[in-house]
Amino acid sequence: MAIERHDIGPRMSKAVVHGNTVYLAGIVADNPKGKSVSEQAKSILGQIDALLAKAGSDKSKLLSANIWITDMANFAEMNAVWDAWVSPGHTPARATVEARLAAPDYKLEIMVVAAK
Amino acid sequence: MAIERHDIGPRMSKAVVHGNTVYLAGIVADNPKGKSVSEQAKSILGQIDALLAKAGSDKSKLLSANIWITDMANFAEMNAVWDAWVSPGHTPARATVEARLAAPDYKLEIMVVAAK
Amino acid sequence: MAIERHDIGPRMSKAVVHGNTVYLAGIVADNPKGKSVSEQAKSILGQIDALLAKAGSDKSKLLSANIWITDMANFAEMNAVWDAWVSPGHTPARATVEARLAAPDYKLEIMVVAAK
Repeated sequence: MAIERHDIGPRMSKAVVHGNTVYLAGIVADNPKGKSVSEQAKSILGQIDALLAKAGSDKSKLLSANIWITDMANFAEMNAVWDAWVSPGHTPARATVEARLAAPDYKLEIMVVAAK
Repeated sequence: MAIERHDIGPRMSKAVVHGNTVYLAGIVADNPKGKSVSEQAKSILGQIDALLAKAGSDKSKLLSANIWITDMANFAEMNAVWDAWVSPGHTPARATVEARLAAPDYKLEIMVVAAK
Repeated sequence: MAIERHDIGPRMSKAVVHGNTVYLAGIVADNPKGKSVSEQAKSILGQIDALLAKAGSDKSKLLSANIWITDMANFAEMNAVWDAWVSPGHTPARATVEARLAAPDYKLEIMVVAAK
């Protein structure tokens, strides 16, 4: 099966397509400094929409999602943005756990697998 | 390839089947309050058995597992239940790390990928 | 689709092949005691090379990687080894978060999915 990569960097690619399965990198907010959890969630999900489009997929084809949040106190704020974003009836398997992320300005990171 | 979802909620689905691959959500114990790590592990693995059955799979077809445990001091107690549950000769790739979970009563969360 | 397992243990297998997709376990350094982050990263990536070879794959076919690091202060040291190891132009989707691991000597754990 063919492997197709998008936004290829020296450390990681932001999207990797293998046959009919799309693997995205863990996505964090653009310009996170001073952004709320809600704003970071919107930035992340917007990037995921764009990457899925590049890979020939969209959020109605999400299979699985891993969410890391730096403070579980922000779980409800993140979920409000997530719940408004997902495609009703086509929600992915999901797990959310607390973890410190690569830089202190990041409050949230989301990594998804989708079908093409 | 067809996508089939089970236990679909507005936030996530508990099982998503894509072709021959089954993605389960991160599963936590039912009624976790006051339950030991061992009891929570049994609750989780029982739910995983039921979800795999709905998806047309079973634990002998597990491919991969991610386990989050809130306190690594409970690693051996969790493993005793896990080791008794897995199908000998058919164990999945697995990683276990420590993380805080969505609510303080949860001591354990397990997310698996299986073949159909 | 056939499932093929390598380095099968009673708790987990180190590599599981499902059709054209290879799932590795979370790999930690051999003999971690006293080893630096850089040394642990080299041990882990060497083991991943060997497991991918057993599964009929190699690092140029990596699809996705999850990295857990016990202290984000060691992120740059880990990345230096990672960046020198990956196959240019064929980098996987990747996420790195901080987490405590199964034993205190481990500073790093890496779990990958690859194409065959």
